[in-house]
Parts: sequence; structure tokens; C-alpha cells
Amino acid sequence: MVALSHQMFAIAPAQGRPSLSRAQLRLLAGKANWLYAAASAGLDVVPTIAITRTAWEALLAERTSGDDALRKVWVTTLFRLVRPGSRPPELVVRTSAPRHIAGLQTARTGISAPANEFDAVDPERALGRAIAAAFASYNSSMSEWMSEDEQDDYGRQIVIVQATAEGRLQRFYTRNTASGRLGPVAMPGDVLPPLPAATKKLIELIDAASGQHMACTISIEGAVARFVSARPVQVSAGAQLEAAVQRVDAGVWAPADAVRRFNPAQLPQLLHPRLTDEDRRTPIATGLGVSPGAASGEIVFTPDDAARCRARGRHCILVVMETGPGDIEGMQAATGFVTARGGMTSHAAVVARITGKPCVAGLRALQIDIENGECRIGDTVITAGQRITIDGSEGTLYLGALPLSRPHIGGALSRLLDWADDTRSVAVRTNAETVDAARTALSFGAEGIGLARSEHMFFSGERMRALRRLILSENEHDRATALEGLVDYQAADYAELFQTMQNKPVTVRLFDPPLHEFLPRSDDDIEDTAAALGLSLRALRARLRRLDEVNPMLGHRGVRLVITYPEILAMQVRALIAGVETAMDNQDLPVNLEIMIPFVTSAREVAWVRSRIMDLAGNAEVFRRGATLSIGAMIELPRACLRAGDIAREVDFISFGTNDLTQTTYGISRDDAPAFLATYHRRALYDVDPFVTIDQRGVGELIRTAIERGRAVKPDLKVGICGEHAGETNSLRFFSGLDIDYVSCSPYRVPVARMVLAQSEGTN
Amino acid sequence: MVALSHQMFAIAPAQGRPSLSRAQLRLLAGKANWLYAAASAGLDVVPTIAITRTAWEALLAERTSGDDALRKVWVTTLFRLVRPGSRPPELVVRTSAPRHIAGLQTARTGISAPANEFDAVDPERALGRAIAAAFASYNSSMSEWMSEDEQDDYGRQIVIVQATAEGRLQRFYTRNTASGRLGPVAMPGDVLPPLPAATKKLIELIDAASGQHMACTISIEGAVARFVSARPVQVSAGAQLEAAVQRVDAGVWAPADAVRRFNPAQLPQLLHPRLTDEDRRTPIATGLGVSPGAASGEIVFTPDDAARCRARGRHCILVVMETGPGDIEGMQAATGFVTARGGMTSHAAVVARITGKPCVAGLRALQIDIENGECRIGDTVITAGQRITIDGSEGTLYLGALPLSRPHIGGALSRLLDWADDTRSVAVRTNAETVDAARTALSFGAEGIGLARSEHMFFSGERMRALRRLILSENEHDRATALEGLVDYQAADYAELFQTMQNKPVTVRLFDPPLHEFLPRSDDDIEDTAAALGLSLRALRARLRRLDEVNPMLGHRGVRLVITYPEILAMQVRALIAGVETAMDNQDLPVNLEIMIPFVTSAREVAWVRSRIMDLAGNAEVFRRGATLSIGAMIELPRACLRAGDIAREVDFISFGTNDLTQTTYGISRDDAPAFLATYHRRALYDVDPFVTIDQRGVGELIRTAIERGRAVKPDLKVGICGEHAGETNSLRFFSGLDIDYVSCSPYRVPVARMVLAQSEGTN
Repeated sequence: MVALSHQMFAIAPAQGRPSLSRAQLRLLAGKANWLYAAASAGLDVVPTIAITRTAWEALLAERTSGDDALRKVWVTTLFRLVRPGSRPPELVVRTSAPRHIAGLQTARTGISAPANEFDAVDPERALGRAIAAAFASYNSSMSEWMSEDEQDDYGRQIVIVQATAEGRLQRFYTRNTASGRLGPVAMPGDVLPPLPAATKKLIELIDAASGQHMACTISIEGAVARFVSARPVQVSAGAQLEAAVQRVDAGVWAPADAVRRFNPAQLPQLLHPRLTDEDRRTPIATGLGVSPGAASGEIVFTPDDAARCRARGRHCILVVMETGPGDIEGMQAATGFVTARGGMTSHAAVVARITGKPCVAGLRALQIDIENGECRIGDTVITAGQRITIDGSEGTLYLGALPLSRPHIGGALSRLLDWADDTRSVAVRTNAETVDAARTALSFGAEGIGLARSEHMFFSGERMRALRRLILSENEHDRATALEGLVDYQAADYAELFQTMQNKPVTVRLFDPPLHEFLPRSDDDIEDTAAALGLSLRALRARLRRLDEVNPMLGHRGVRLVITYPEILAMQVRALIAGVETAMDNQDLPVNLEIMIPFVTSAREVAWVRSRIMDLAGNAEVFRRGATLSIGAMIELPRACLRAGDIAREVDFISFGTNDLTQTTYGISRDDAPAFLATYHRRALYDVDPFVTIDQRGVGELIRTAIERGRAVKPDLKVGICGEHAGETNSLRFFSGLDIDYVSCSPYRVPVARMVLAQSEGTN
Repeated sequence: MVALSHQMFAIAPAQGRPSLSRAQLRLLAGKANWLYAAASAGLDVVPTIAITRTAWEALLAERTSGDDALRKVWVTTLFRLVRPGSRPPELVVRTSAPRHIAGLQTARTGISAPANEFDAVDPERALGRAIAAAFASYNSSMSEWMSEDEQDDYGRQIVIVQATAEGRLQRFYTRNTASGRLGPVAMPGDVLPPLPAATKKLIELIDAASGQHMACTISIEGAVARFVSARPVQVSAGAQLEAAVQRVDAGVWAPADAVRRFNPAQLPQLLHPRLTDEDRRTPIATGLGVSPGAASGEIVFTPDDAARCRARGRHCILVVMETGPGDIEGMQAATGFVTARGGMTSHAAVVARITGKPCVAGLRALQIDIENGECRIGDTVITAGQRITIDGSEGTLYLGALPLSRPHIGGALSRLLDWADDTRSVAVRTNAETVDAARTALSFGAEGIGLARSEHMFFSGERMRALRRLILSENEHDRATALEGLVDYQAADYAELFQTMQNKPVTVRLFDPPLHEFLPRSDDDIEDTAAALGLSLRALRARLRRLDEVNPMLGHRGVRLVITYPEILAMQVRALIAGVETAMDNQDLPVNLEIMIPFVTSAREVAWVRSRIMDLAGNAEVFRRGATLSIGAMIELPRACLRAGDIAREVDFISFGTNDLTQTTYGISRDDAPAFLATYHRRALYDVDPFVTIDQRGVGELIRTAIERGRAVKPDLKVGICGEHAGETNSLRFFSGLDIDYVSCSPYRVPVARMVLAQSEGTN
């Protein structure tokens, strides 16, 4: 507790430098900081004093007590605004809050200096009224969301009183809001006159002290520039990034400061096109933003139209009820997707994130009339060929082609990320199964592949037919034929992937097709599939009915598939080994292969599959040539977490699939969640969307338990996280506090993970 | 370790009574027990000695050592088979294993007494050959499944050697195999001659010593009956039950002995019709037994045909792909159900268990051709009207009407269960929502309702339409209209249920309809529903599409429904309070109402719903008249288990829904599990079917954790288990070791729960 008499003090006295105690320095907040920094550096600053709420209330209370000790101090402090030999100036009262709060009182100017001691504390007089109003504006704006800590700090809030600056006021930015280059930079619509030489030094000082882009006000009187006020301004991530790197180059910051102070939530802005703020209109519809970035293009309603549009060199947005593997070629042609159904894990969302395209899903209001070539969203009817713009971060859809800003990364980002790597020990891998995705991830600094979803390698027409032939086979002979056809595709894909990743680790997850995502559903698609497989329509429909699952997410998938059909396992292992062979024939580096068994619930399942993999691959010649093979389990079910001790005995590594683990821990199907999660958020029933930010108190406990039990049995067990959460800021902070070896996220999230892990490990 | 020389001894010496040390008594196993019991009681027993495997092997080893100490003991023991003054008799060698093992050597008779000391231990001679063969037969039959304990016991196995009985051999049962009355009772196809008076005493003695139905062999020589051998026989549960009660009446057993020794797995036999063993044929198909008991009838393929068949006074078995709520009237008319799809939790299975009818589900080979009135199972074609028989315990289907045995319970069962109640502290409630089910459960001793699934009250035509109107409503106004119609139905149903249960506790679970079970699916059903609701077909289909869920088990259900549509909660609470009112107007007893909130994941959801329930009902007049209201949460998701501490603060009780908890902990949809669980069992990957027997090491840990965390916060928290497992023997044993207050199972399982809990608590 600072003595009341010390809660009124000069930040920038009219004469001499300020001299504040450590306790008084701790009372500084907001613009008071920058004024004090400039004044104590000997720069010209408009005379400024500060008073706390507690002191102000004590001053008022003293008025009825007959005492005058505090008033004397206050008057003395006010006198520090007066230049020697001058008359007391007119005053300005400003708030000085630690952060931006809407509704704060703006500066009250032109306040006459109090005529006497009593006027100085009279709440009916101009000065008192302005100070009381300033404190009241904190009050009304803050009370609602004050935490307990903030309530403790309530009395420590300050208001500042300044002498009115003589001369002409001039405002400018400390740095360019686009390039980040050091200013002075004119405000929009303004032109800067020549400024006194001291301005340069002031800007450097404020920039170093605040570490942000600031809007400054100075008063100019001849050659003298006096600092009046400053506040931070929001600027683009790119500008902040450039500024941060320049501060390091200028020796103002250490590299670690640049890392620590960068807001990783801004990284996606640097990696995807986005809507510019200036011309943002009201969206005509809002769904779920499931793949970030923005895109504009002609609206098309079928994958074929997308391909035709693309062939004419035009951008298009594919708007459909939902997508399936059969749509993959059309999806590759589109610039972005909108789906009426599905959520974060729908086919469209997964493809979008892999390919870095924006996607809006779960737009339930959407109705499509393909025959008439139009769709309806609420009252709006959009015809094929009309331009629309989507924002896959916000989940919004706009009419017309809105202006987009393209990413302009330059060298600053990679320098910042390299600095981040210096304080990071948890590795960052990527979830990727195509060469394109792997290359993107490598360019972003991925240290390996933590999750290659082998079934995703079939997201193309011809391969999809081969895969469907397998899934629809009804006996071992049919299955064997279908598998034969798949081995070559797979082997070639794996070889390419291994070569791309050189000798970085590549975790291939065994085949885990949730059946409903891979089977034809529309009548057309069923007819095509029947023709391709040489089946009668009736026979195909009968097989589809038999495969139909009530809850495919909890169905015949993952490890269950290879246990019931061991020949599928044999095919995959054969293809993997062939892929390793080809890759090692083409390059000198040995392949570092990790096979991951998905959707396990018990150690016995893992042991069963592991022993078969070893039988099939253990003696392969490539392992004598330096290739390595490790086997792991994907931990994505509550029971697997609880039995992680037993499971650890059977594997070299475990990796958490946080998406499925969240679905089962909560009993929420991500696909079906939109129907009620919005209400949950509105009623504040969940702190966070558990599919976006890891639920620390439920799912997180299971992960922590599993790691403890696994390491208790096998201290050198390798532990990774490969679910969607591994690319999300708050989740990464939580993961960094666990005893893990790596995270694996989608390529565009790799920089976020590098950054957040570096920041978290720096503070752990 | 018993000295070798003490491992050869007389169980029934030719002269005098046996005199065995405590260590020797512990070596007795199988029939040696009964021979010893009779001999030491002074009854006539054919002279009998025993030798352990260890002793026999030592005897053989001694032959090459030049020593003769053991041989002397053995010869002395053999001489105890010889009556004073008689010549050594011919010998019989028998195995004497602690339990029935297939492949044991049968008695070797007519073995000449050894001519000299050396012959007595010569493995080439008749006696030695027979003894060695007897030990070898344990060997080959037991080695495969010996546990470690059993391997330790290996050397302690015994073979017995008897003097050949003089006189005529006579076999009989100690008790009637049907009625359980004390015998002697002739073996099938035999007629008993008059037996010596001592036989009666022998039977009583063997019955008391063994506590089982035994097949005895005696030798009769004039008025002398000598006991030769005895083995237990398998008899019906009814016979065992009657015998147990008679033993208590005769003072042979204390009531607690009767409880402890009864095998609860046999109870269902007493409560459902079943196939008789005599005429069991080979089933033509096997699916999942999902509701126990057996039934015969004409095969019908539609609910309408079932109704018509029943109207003509004939029994029928409804054979369909699957059932839905629209089929309920036809299902009530059928004697049993067979479905191609679904499992333990399918609509048909649930209805079957509630109504006590047998059901076979998941018969994937079944194809139905309604137009031609036939179905095909593999190569067998069955035409409508043909008779079939199903066994819903085994999951089997037979051609023709097989003979069934009807339950004949009598008073014995209720006496046994009353004794069980004396050693039981965990209460047994029932899962029931109809008056019929509640009455059945009360007659079986249920102490309350632990789970009334309010949505099941709509399993009938008119109510189903009202419910569908609610589910399909698209705005608050439609919903309000639909709800208005539901209140009256519900209030009347509740009133009846409360009156039936008098003031026993009734837990009503809030509405939890998995949508797919309640919506029309077939074209006909959709047309009917559209007509009933006054909707166009097109509009209805559009609404159905919007409600369609990818994984309904993890969808918009349980507490999520009342959070998104609070008016549904209001309707239910209104109907409950009206029901309590009516019940209390009609009877003097106050209603003991418990409202349970299903499918929760967090304390906040529970608090939200609880506060609304209290707003709606807290001030109802009935609570001033003595009715009580408590509020609880159904714990059926992993996260609810982990957060049970927080949840406990908000509730009076928690009750575990083990079925959903198993589904989410394992990530297995019970409906889809048949496709792979059979392979899992074949490959021994799971110890038990987790949907039948609770998985102690996964699901069980979550339950235990939840109870600990709940009680840590609220020591008087009431804890129940209301999932399917609460009626299964092994699961009940596990639950009884937890700190719970009650279990709740389907009516026909109530006696099983009473019995198993009594047995388990007796040994905890």
C-alpha cells in the first residue's frame, strides 16, 4: 500500500526530471508510462501529474474532516505543472488505463487552474468535475467484467492532469502501419509538416518503451517539440512483425523479446489472403469458419461446373450441400467451398485445410436448386455465375467480389520463427499425406510428419474407385483383388512422400476410413460406382445397406478394420515397405518410418497388430540399409488413455488424436454439434468450444493421465499430439506444460505452433 | 507340504472309521469327499484308499533307489482295503477331481490285488497301469487351462483305489431332478427296487455334505447298503432352488448358506419360458440374444400381420429388418422379435426387455421379401405362417415349434430372495416407465424406480404422433402447440406410475430421444406422418433432412435438448407436478420424485437446468403436502465422470448410465458393434463383451473415480447405477465393491440383482 500522500505525483514536472519511488512507478498505467519514459530520458514533455482513485477519494473525504494534510500535497503537486515564473496554465484531464476500454472519457481540455486550495479539491469545480468524470468512466466501463484482481487494482487506477501545451498540436504514428518502418508517419488524410529534430529521438524512445505502434501527439513551438500524449494503435500482423524484427536489428530488443511479444493469433493473417478492413460489408450469411483465409469467385453448384469455370481461367466458389471423395477433382478446381452440412471435421473442411483453401461449413440456411442454377439463403437468391466472397476464418459469406489482401511475408517471418526455435524443445511436425502439403509444411519449418492419414491418399477419382472396391468387397477373394490394385498406388505415393521428407520422421496412420465418408451417396454417384465395379445397382445398394452404420464415428474403423480384415494390414505394410525401398533407391538418406495404429482401446489390440507388422516387415532388407521402423498407437479414446500404461509396453510412441478424444469424452459428434453448441456458447455453459480449444479439465486430464501412465512404464516413450488442437494457441500452451516430444498440425499452422511453443516454454 | 508317507491313506478303511490329519483332509477332492464323509459318519462304505500324484511318482522313483520306505507305507495302505480274515479283494481305480473335466478316465474295475510288494508299485502291472492312466487323464485334460494356482496343486491330485463291492450295484439320484424333493430317485429308464433302510441316511448325509443333486452308486448285499461312489449332476434351476429351501427347512443349511450357494446365472431360467434340453435341434441361424426367454409362433413380416395373427388368437414371431416406434402396436401383438439390424440397445431390444419378450437381433444374414411373403436366411427360405422358435438368451432361431418349459416359481424363490435381502444393503430398483413393467418389478421385489425413460412413454401410435409433432416443430409457436398436447398424456402416465410405486422413489429421466429412433423412416411412415401433421411430403422431408444426424448417439439429445428448447423442460416439469398432484389426490402416500438430467458433461449444464426446475416446481403445493423432490444427474459420459466433483455440488444424486458410458469410453456404437465384436471375441482381444459385463479396468475406473470425487465434495450424495449392466452378475459383483446406494435394472433382472448383491456383500 502506497502512502496516500505518495499517490499524487509528477510524471513530468515543469522543472527538472521526474523522481518516482518504485511504488509510484508501479502505479503508472497506459499513457502515463510513455510520458514518464520521455520525461525521465530528458526529453521535452508537457508538464504532467497523476493521482490515484484512492488518493482522490481521500482528498474528497478530507474536506469534511477539517484536516488538510492531503490537500497540501495535492496543491503542491499541482504546482509542479507550473513553469518557474509563469502563471498556472490551463489544465487538461486525461484517463490513463492499462488497456483500451470502450467508453473512457476523452480528454477534457481548457480547465482553468484552481483559484485557491479549496477549489483544487472541490468536485463542483471544473478540475474536480473532470477528474471525477474520468474515474467514473473507468467505473462504468470496467465494473461488469472486473476480475477479483482487477477489483483489488480498482483503487490504484490513475487520472493524469497536464498543463495545456503551448504551440501547435501535431499527431503522427511512430511507425508505418503497413510496412512497420519507423516514422514519423502521417495519420490518414494528414500531411506531416517538417518536425523539430527532437521528434526522431522521441519516436525511438516511445517505440522502445512501448514495443508497439503508437499514435503520438506533440506540441510544436518553434524548434521545440513537447510530448503530449500517446496511445497504441492496432495494425496488421505484417507491420507488427516488421517492426519487431527492426527493433531486434536496432538492438532495442533481444530476439527472445521479439518472440515473447509477438501475438501468434496474428500469424494466420500472414499466411492466408484475407478481407481488407476498409471495405468490409455486412455478410449475407454466417456459418462455421472451418478453414481460414478469404476468397472471391463465381458461385458454382457442382464440382463439374467448378472444373469448367477453372478451365476458363476464372476463380469459383463451390457451394454444395456437402462434399464427398467423388468431388475431389472439382474441389481442386475451386478457390473456396461453402457447405450446408458438416463442421470442422467434414470432408470439405479437411480437404480445405489440407489445400489451404477457405471453407465455410454448416450454413444450415442454404438451399440449392441445381436444376434452376440458383441457391437461396434466407431471402437472398444467388444465381450461378454471380460473384461471392467468403471468409473461412469468420465463417461469413458476402455478395460481390470484395478486395482481398494477399500475404506479403518477406524474410521477417522466417527470422522471427528461427529465433522462436532457439527457445523451443517440443518438436513441430505436420499432418500431411500429399507431397504438396508436405512441401508447404517443410517451407514453414515442419520437422517431420506426425500424421499421414493413409485413407486421404485416395481423395481422387481413380483411387477412390479402387478404395470403394475394397470397402464393398464381400469375400476374401474380392478383397484380395481390390488390395492388389491398391498396393501400387500406395507404394508410389509413399515413395514420393518419403523422398520429400528426406530422413525426417514420417508417421503413417493405418487406414482409418469412417465408412460414410468414402461410400457413394447420391443416386448418380451410386450408378457410377456400380458401373465402375461391374455390380448391378440392386447388388450395390444391398451392400451399401449392409455397411450402413448408425453411428459411423463409433463404428467399424481404425484398428477394428485391420483386425477383422488382416489382408488390409498386409497390403498397407507391403506398400509402405515398397515405398521405403523406392525412396532409398532414389536418395542416399534412410527413411524414418513410424506406423501408427488408430482407434485402439486396449494393449491386446496393439500387440496383435504390432506382431503382424513385425512378421510382415521386420526382416525387410531396407532396415539393414539404415531405414528405421517404429510402431505406435494413436490415443483417441478415453479407454486408451486409461490403459496407456499397458499400451506403452507394446509401442515405441503414442500420439493423441484430440479430435476424436474430445468427441468421445464429451459425447459430442462434431458434425452434429452446430445444432446446440451455439446455444451453449450463448448461455455461457462451456468456457470454450472444446473442438477449437482443448478442454483442459476433462480431455486434458485424460491426456495427462495417459502420459503419466505411459512414461511410468516406459520412460523413453515418445509422445506426440496430432489432433486439430495441436495448431491452436491456447491448446498449444496447455500441451507445452505436458511432458511431450512433439505436436503435429496442418501445414499452415506449423508457424503458429513454433511460435506458441517457444513462448510457452520460455515461461514454463 | 504333507510328508510323502502321509500322501497314501485310507478314506474308508475295511475296518474301523477313517482317521485323517488336517493336511490329509485338505487333499480330499471330488468323490473322495463324499466317501470320507460317509465313512467317518459310521455308514457302510466300500473300502477306499487314496494316493496323491506326488506320492505315486515318488513310489516309482524309489524303485531304482534301492530304498523301500514308501513302498512299505503303500502296501500297508493297500491292506486297509482288506477285511480281517478275508483275501485281498479285486480292486477298482477311480479318478477324483475337484470338478467335472471332460476326458477323465472312467473307473477301471476288476483289477487283481497285487501278488507281492513289488507288483504294488510296478507300472507294468494292472494296478500301476490303472493308477498311471488315471493321473495321465488329469494331465491331458487339465494342462491346457491350468492357472498357476492349479499348477501348484498339480502334485496334490489324488486317485482312489477301492475294493470291488460285493453284491448288486444300484444307482440313483439323491433328489428329484425336477422338483428337488429328497430321494432316492430312479435314474431315467430305471426302476428302483426296495432299498435297505440305511440308504435314507446315506442320502441325507451326501446331500448335506455336497449341497448339490448327486448321482450315487451303492452296493446292496441283503440288508446292507454300501456306498461306492457319487458325482454331482446338473439339474434345472428350479430343482436346485427347491432343494436349497428344503435344506434350510431341514436345518442342514442356514438361510445365508442357501443364498451364498445359489448360482444367480440360473435365475433367468426361472423367470422366462425356455427351450427344453431334451428336444433341442440345430439352430438355422444365430444372431445376438438381446432379450432372454424362448418363444414359438408363426412367422410374420409386418407389425400389421402380427396384429392380425394375434387377433386370430395365434402366437407369432415378428421378423423385420428393424423396428421403430411406429411399430409398437404390432410389437405388442407379437410373442417375440427377430431383427436383421441392431444390437442390445436397438429399439426392438429395448421394447423386448421391457415387455419380457424374447428377441434375437443383428441377424445379418436375414433377407426379407415382404411382397412374396418370405424371408431367406442363408439357404433356408421361410414362408409367412411357417412356425419358428427363437431363443432370446442364446440368440438362436429354429424351424418348427419346439417344446418350451414354462416358469414354475412357487414360493421357494421368494423365500430365497427374502433371505438374500437380509445380507444386502445396496438397494435394488428397476428401469420401468409403464405400469405393467412397474408391477412386474414390484412383484420381483423392486424398491423403487431408478430410471423411467420419459420418452419411452411415447411408444404408441397416438402419442408418437404428438411427440413427432414436437420434434419436427420449426419454431416456438409450433413447439408450444405440440407441447400443450403432450402435457396431458404425460401427467396421466406419471400419476398412474406414481400410484403404482406408492411412496417408493421414482427417478424420472428428462426426455432423451435419440432422434433417429423417433422419426419416420420408411416411405409409408413418412407419408402417414405428413398427413397426421398436416405437412406436405416435401416439407416433411426437408425437416427430416435438417434433423438428420451423422452420429445420433453423440448428437442433439439429453440435457442439450432442454437447454436449446427450455419449453420442453417446462412441459415436462409441469406434467410431473400434475402427475404428483393427481397421485396424491388418489392415495394417502406422498410421492417421492427424483428428476434426473441425462447426458451431462459439466456442472454448469446441471446448475442451469436445476435452477429452472426449481423455478418451475420449487413452490408447488404438493411439496408442502409431503411430496419430495430431488434432482440428480445421469453420469454417462467420460467427462461427467471426471467432473463429478463439480457436478455433485449441484445435485442430490448421481446415477451411472453404463451403456452410453461404455459406448463413449470405448468409442463403440453398440448398434454397429456386431460387425467386429465377434472377431474380437474369436481373437481373444477383449476379456468380456463390455456391453454385457462392465469393463472394470476402463469404464469401471471412471465410475470409481466419479464416486470418489462426488463423495469427496458431498459425502451424503446418493449414488446409483442404472445401465443394463446393473442386472448382470459379474458387473453386479463389481458394483457391490463400490460405494453405491442402489442399482436399477430391468424388471426381470431384479431378482438377479437382489441375489448377487447379497452374495457379494456377504464376501466383501
